Amino acid sequence: MLTVFGSTALDTIRTPSKTLKDVLGGAATFAGIASSFFIKTGLIAVVGNDFPKKYHNILSKKLDLQGLVIKNGKTFRYDGKYDHTLSNRTTLKTELNVLSNFSPVVPEEYKKSKFVYLANNDPDQNSALIKEFDRVKFSMCDTIEFWISTKRDSVIKMIKSVNAVVINDEEAKLLTKEFNLIKCAKKIMDWGAEYVIIKKGEHGSLLFYEDVIFPSPAFSLEAILDPTGAGDSFAGAMIGFLASKNSTSISNIKKSIVYGNVVGSFAVEKYGVDGLLILTSAKIAKRVRQYKKMVQF
Amino acid sequence: MLTVFGSTALDTIRTPSKTLKDVLGGAATFAGIASSFFIKTGLIAVVGNDFPKKYHNILSKKLDLQGLVIKNGKTFRYDGKYDHTLSNRTTLKTELNVLSNFSPVVPEEYKKSKFVYLANNDPDQNSALIKEFDRVKFSMCDTIEFWISTKRDSVIKMIKSVNAVVINDEEAKLLTKEFNLIKCAKKIMDWGAEYVIIKKGEHGSLLFYEDVIFPSPAFSLEAILDPTGAGDSFAGAMIGFLASKNSTSISNIKKSIVYGNVVGSFAVEKYGVDGLLILTSAKIAKRVRQYKKMVQF
Repeated sequence: MLTVFGSTALDTIRTPSKTLKDVLGGAATFAGIASSFFIKTGLIAVVGNDFPKKYHNILSKKLDLQGLVIKNGKTFRYDGKYDHTLSNRTTLKTELNVLSNFSPVVPEEYKKSKFVYLANNDPDQNSALIKEFDRVKFSMCDTIEFWISTKRDSVIKMIKSVNAVVINDEEAKLLTKEFNLIKCAKKIMDWGAEYVIIKKGEHGSLLFYEDVIFPSPAFSLEAILDPTGAGDSFAGAMIGFLASKNSTSISNIKKSIVYGNVVGSFAVEKYGVDGLLILTSAKIAKRVRQYKKMVQF
Repeated sequence: MLTVFGSTALDTIRTPSKTLKDVLGGAATFAGIASSFFIKTGLIAVVGNDFPKKYHNILSKKLDLQGLVIKNGKTFRYDGKYDHTLSNRTTLKTELNVLSNFSPVVPEEYKKSKFVYLANNDPDQNSALIKEFDRVKFSMCDTIEFWISTKRDSVIKMIKSVNAVVINDEEAKLLTKEFNLIKCAKKIMDWGAEYVIIKKGEHGSLLFYEDVIFPSPAFSLEAILDPTGAGDSFAGAMIGFLASKNSTSISNIKKSIVYGNVVGSFAVEKYGVDGLLILTSAKIAKRVRQYKKMVQF
């Protein structure tokens, strides 16, 4: 199985076409639902007792929830606004609520996970949590500007403790203090990651492993409604695909990135998690075939 | 043969590592040298009588210069400065000089060209010049912010008169007033271009033709010294490859874009045109093989 540790949130998302209030969101929600198309996925997360039953039902249909803690208090809330280009998001409010003093515990069954995804959590928490897994074959973490700015040393320590880092281009530059993405990736590999995947939004991603560089364009889309969760869906599908193959061969890593691109493209076609909720394995397979045809020359 | 119409310049380029004073530059210089690896290329351009003999010699080795006019006066000069990331360039000075009242004339021999590249010239000049060619199979133009801001209607008229438009992403957005690159391309196709190639710098390019979208990543490079002329080299290699095949099949158009990416990658590895001057067909072929291997999955 695959374990995903990260946030489950109630998001307020303001896009040019629509504002969504307190909808199901969070990095682990997107990543976990994306990975669930490939492999049984266990969620380690916390919500408050205000977390709507309908969202709990959605999660329980897609994920193993032994690791989901329901605490007294309010669920983590995020409020962000996209500009008219949908390329830039401004954070209006972040309320940590029950997330602020959450001590994640790994259920016994999850400890056997060979594949573990640590979303953009506190890097110290990620570093501690990964030690609880006895049989990890492939662990991957993400990180965000907030942790790079406030806990850079902990981020670097976390990188040592995992196999792979998936990170946005701007955050990779901020973290490594480099401008060229190859230089960014080399520095992150020097810090101990075997694989570095730099996400570039609409421009796709770059994978680095030893002397391999694998650039992959995004699946081109005309109708983007809400970019929220695209990167988390990318990461979740990627590691979910690898877990389903029980493989970390470079060939499968490359394929997993194509699956990441494709699932990420479905996520942005609808608002919030809706793009993932109406998704099926058949639709993923079909778009992967379209992707292959698209990039061929 | 292929005809390239555009600017030949003396550039002052300020990069973080080095400043080059009055070096050989200009859109047609880069595009023409790039295309010369594939096909005999004729240049239509103007320089002043201050144009150094050594630069004239370089051009005459690579290009047919029947279309190069030497006028009394000073050569077109451009002065620009890159920031520390090499991603942003500020124009410090543009001196049109002999370019300001240049009336291009197409030499008889050039009129038989089946492939014509119109660089980022005055769109009215481009529209007029293309009519001088009797047997054009494939014409392609570029444009820049200056013309979009000052002569948008003429740019749109020019687009009607060519087969293909190659344009930067930011300029495509400015021109079409759209944010999504697919929407940008559709609008340009609605205006009459059959093919639209949107250049995205380090992120590669997107080709649009009928319902085909072909995204191609750039050849990943760690050591970039000077991005000047990358886009012009891309366009020159692209149309040069097509001219050498005497083909505009979609398969060859896709391949031509790969050649464009590869030749563009050589251009940025050295200062000014140096990257193109030390280039050979064998080096291009080798990097195309590396490119194919790189993007495979």
